[in-house]
Amino acid sequence: MKIALAQLNYHIGNFEVNTQKIIQSATKAQSLGAELIVFAELAVSGYPPRDFLEFDDFINRCAFAVSDIADHCKDIAVIVGTPIKNPAEKGKPLFNAAAFISNGEVQYFRKALLPNYDVFDEYRYFEPSHEFEILHFKGKKIAVTVCEDLWNIGNDPLYTINPMDELMKHQPDFMINIAASPFDYLQAKTRTAVLQKNVEKYKIPLIYVNHVGSQTELLFDGGSMSISADNQIFNQLPFFREDMQIIETDSLFTPITAIRSSIEVSETELIHDALVMGIKNYFEKLGFTKAILGLSGGIDSAVTMVLAARALGAENVLGLLMPSQFSSQHSVDDAIQLANSLGSPFKTIPIEKLYTSFENQLETEFKDLPFGIAEENIQARIRGVLLMAMSNKFGHIVLNTSNKSEAAVGYGTLYGDMNGGLSVLGDVYKTRVFELAHFINKDSEVIPSNTIAKPPSAELRPNQKDSDSLPDYDILDQILFQYIECRNGPKELIAMGFEEKIVNRVLKLVNTNEYKRHQTPPILRVTTKAFGMGRRMPIVAKYLS
Amino acid sequence: MKIALAQLNYHIGNFEVNTQKIIQSATKAQSLGAELIVFAELAVSGYPPRDFLEFDDFINRCAFAVSDIADHCKDIAVIVGTPIKNPAEKGKPLFNAAAFISNGEVQYFRKALLPNYDVFDEYRYFEPSHEFEILHFKGKKIAVTVCEDLWNIGNDPLYTINPMDELMKHQPDFMINIAASPFDYLQAKTRTAVLQKNVEKYKIPLIYVNHVGSQTELLFDGGSMSISADNQIFNQLPFFREDMQIIETDSLFTPITAIRSSIEVSETELIHDALVMGIKNYFEKLGFTKAILGLSGGIDSAVTMVLAARALGAENVLGLLMPSQFSSQHSVDDAIQLANSLGSPFKTIPIEKLYTSFENQLETEFKDLPFGIAEENIQARIRGVLLMAMSNKFGHIVLNTSNKSEAAVGYGTLYGDMNGGLSVLGDVYKTRVFELAHFINKDSEVIPSNTIAKPPSAELRPNQKDSDSLPDYDILDQILFQYIECRNGPKELIAMGFEEKIVNRVLKLVNTNEYKRHQTPPILRVTTKAFGMGRRMPIVAKYLS
Repeated sequence: MKIALAQLNYHIGNFEVNTQKIIQSATKAQSLGAELIVFAELAVSGYPPRDFLEFDDFINRCAFAVSDIADHCKDIAVIVGTPIKNPAEKGKPLFNAAAFISNGEVQYFRKALLPNYDVFDEYRYFEPSHEFEILHFKGKKIAVTVCEDLWNIGNDPLYTINPMDELMKHQPDFMINIAASPFDYLQAKTRTAVLQKNVEKYKIPLIYVNHVGSQTELLFDGGSMSISADNQIFNQLPFFREDMQIIETDSLFTPITAIRSSIEVSETELIHDALVMGIKNYFEKLGFTKAILGLSGGIDSAVTMVLAARALGAENVLGLLMPSQFSSQHSVDDAIQLANSLGSPFKTIPIEKLYTSFENQLETEFKDLPFGIAEENIQARIRGVLLMAMSNKFGHIVLNTSNKSEAAVGYGTLYGDMNGGLSVLGDVYKTRVFELAHFINKDSEVIPSNTIAKPPSAELRPNQKDSDSLPDYDILDQILFQYIECRNGPKELIAMGFEEKIVNRVLKLVNTNEYKRHQTPPILRVTTKAFGMGRRMPIVAKYLS
Repeated sequence: MKIALAQLNYHIGNFEVNTQKIIQSATKAQSLGAELIVFAELAVSGYPPRDFLEFDDFINRCAFAVSDIADHCKDIAVIVGTPIKNPAEKGKPLFNAAAFISNGEVQYFRKALLPNYDVFDEYRYFEPSHEFEILHFKGKKIAVTVCEDLWNIGNDPLYTINPMDELMKHQPDFMINIAASPFDYLQAKTRTAVLQKNVEKYKIPLIYVNHVGSQTELLFDGGSMSISADNQIFNQLPFFREDMQIIETDSLFTPITAIRSSIEVSETELIHDALVMGIKNYFEKLGFTKAILGLSGGIDSAVTMVLAARALGAENVLGLLMPSQFSSQHSVDDAIQLANSLGSPFKTIPIEKLYTSFENQLETEFKDLPFGIAEENIQARIRGVLLMAMSNKFGHIVLNTSNKSEAAVGYGTLYGDMNGGLSVLGDVYKTRVFELAHFINKDSEVIPSNTIAKPPSAELRPNQKDSDSLPDYDILDQILFQYIECRNGPKELIAMGFEEKIVNRVLKLVNTNEYKRHQTPPILRVTTKAFGMGRRMPIVAKYLS
């Protein structure tokens, strides 16, 4: 049987576009001889639809999309993800389902394991299924599952049941899993391992279709694939772009060494590609084309600008230089050199006079009090006002350039450099930002070498260095990784050999700066634990703080 | 049997303070003759601890708190809420439990129904219990449940089981329910109805203990109570403050008409009291005493200032007047009159010169383009910078004064008037803000009558009125209520008689302004659906937009 794997970029709530894409792919696949085409989880609505799922109108539009697909796909069968109503009186009002559409008839296979951790909220909307039916199609028995249904296979089972154990009672010929599995730089490996463990356990082939494209902070990397009965990966679809491939299921039973189509790439390259896609899709889905960012001559704004130029075209990214009395000449030079090397426009608006106006206006209140955080923040906030003024006047989206290390310890000014429509590096530790810069410069000096070589500084007072206020990034980032990604507490961190005083200081900084992170832009998620919807912390808490 | 109901204000993660409060209350109750004292759900950790629950260290500190309580409470038994580890290999790693502590021994009763809607995320952390044991104490059989366990009793059951149905098989003498039931202006009635439905169904008395006090956006109103077997409310504890009361369980079987201790109050008064508590607790729990807010002469800042003065003391609330060339004289006069009537300090920093500085600095870029949104926003953002400068210099928290109607349709400037550490009115529609003003003025003119009488205006351009850009608040607020609180879609709204054009415009405004709400301060929650953690929407979506 010829089956098409369609890896598409959907737009949440944009039923017209999603349905059209699905029907077009099905028509194409049919013309190429496919008998069945498989789309991703909740493809008709886009993933995650979040609280739109609480609106009857939204669910009705999903149902209409399914019937529209059924009307248009008479000569090819379709598997496509959609929310459906729970007809029972008790339980949550919806199921997360795979619709099997054939000859105008629709049969639903409902998700049993509902992820409800990190960025996932599926128990908020869906009732878990307790029924396990097999799909009969063209003489084959197919075990159809939805994403998480295959994931309860590791050493630390989150669920008490395992859907494939139930489905195996029907002796299926192969498995089809439709997914919405977001990217992080470890996920492609984890995902492949989980899928292969299923094939190893159940000894039948697997066809796996994922989303591609980004939805605000969530990046979907694609990487859909088939796995043969002898656990070789077949026809893996590309990462970070749409594609469709057709496989012949018989070939999945032939024990050969398959050629894996994906190339092994470094974590840093994966992150680079993911962030470029994240920026591109954010702008496209909001209908914007132009970005603006503050260009300081530092490494964070340089890397952000390169990524934005690669996503949107260099000509669409405006660098705004806003030097103050504390800006060094090399900062200005480095910023200009970067814009020129990219071929991006830049403009300069000095902030010294504006800062003096604020000083004058606040003189009565501030009197002779010494220069401090308030004055540093005024400079950052003037820059924020200027970026937003340009954005409002000319229709740019402001890109935020804060990195994860800064966001973690609150080293940034709320309503100043923490502004933006989208945070590009908010899930990238400073040490990784350096790796990204080296990766970007691997063939030629895109980012000025001086930007990479000089010690990081906010330049908000004379001779300021990040290292005046923070531990070295090498140490800081390790502690943050252990605390944020690995959820290790103070005892575990000290046992690892980190100095107690530094551990306590860093954890306190992280916890007391929750209020700042509460008000920051959405952050493109590239690790297993990003700030934002996947990390939910109380603000008034008193814990390690 | 004498049982004490302890309604306390806990602080998330502050184990030392929480444990001490619990032990002190137990000691006092024992001295008053109580044999058992009952505290709220997750009292040892505070509620909601959110992702702190993912830290082993946090869970260990909860366990330590329970053993500390056991060590100190030898002559009185205690029921107190705590997270505990799930000893099973499968399922989520924790249970949400009621610990029964007696003579140094601890027995756990685990929550079966886990709320995972609106502001609740309990499936994120906890495994639901499937075991239903009865507590034997002093010859009585007690059905101990945790909050939601009693809530599957309405017409729209979210869950497929009902814990009390199971527990009734043991023929308990009475029920004890420990809760974390947050306030909204309808919740006290809903909660009482649900509890009475349980007593009506099971025909045994109920002892119910809730949290009081606020945790960032969540306000707990208390209102703990006993309900007799003949469904009369006994000894209801007060709303919005800590208290302890002792009841004799025998009296709960005597059919008398009990005197309900709470007074029926209006929705607006409830909201008033809840907001005052919310401000007070936010400052206390973060260790701050002083607030600052922009005082425009308008009704939102006036109501916010009165609530803040009642929460923190008038002397601790600084009103900052920041008039521009577009500010009318009456706005300035009204603002000063308000500060004087409260006895609060105020200061004036005009923004005209600062605005001119920005105009000059942006002249090269803006050229002869007409005055528009960019220029309006610059004014609002200058005010934001000034408020934050004062806050940074003198240690105030900035109070945000945006109301729910504005937040809904995006009528506000990000990084300008949308700034603040806490949004006081972000869950209060404009029409309700007027009701709050009238309530505040019921005995004397605290808020200048002119502030209430004049048409709302942002005063960011000559003769601007809110009604230039928005439908009348009477209509707008009704549409917003139906869309946000009731989740009615366009069809339902039009069927209710709202004009199609206005409905589509308002819904589009709400949906396209999600990006602004993503970056706003935490909002004190007073309705069944507040912006923030209880309403989760995608930003890049294209739905009704």
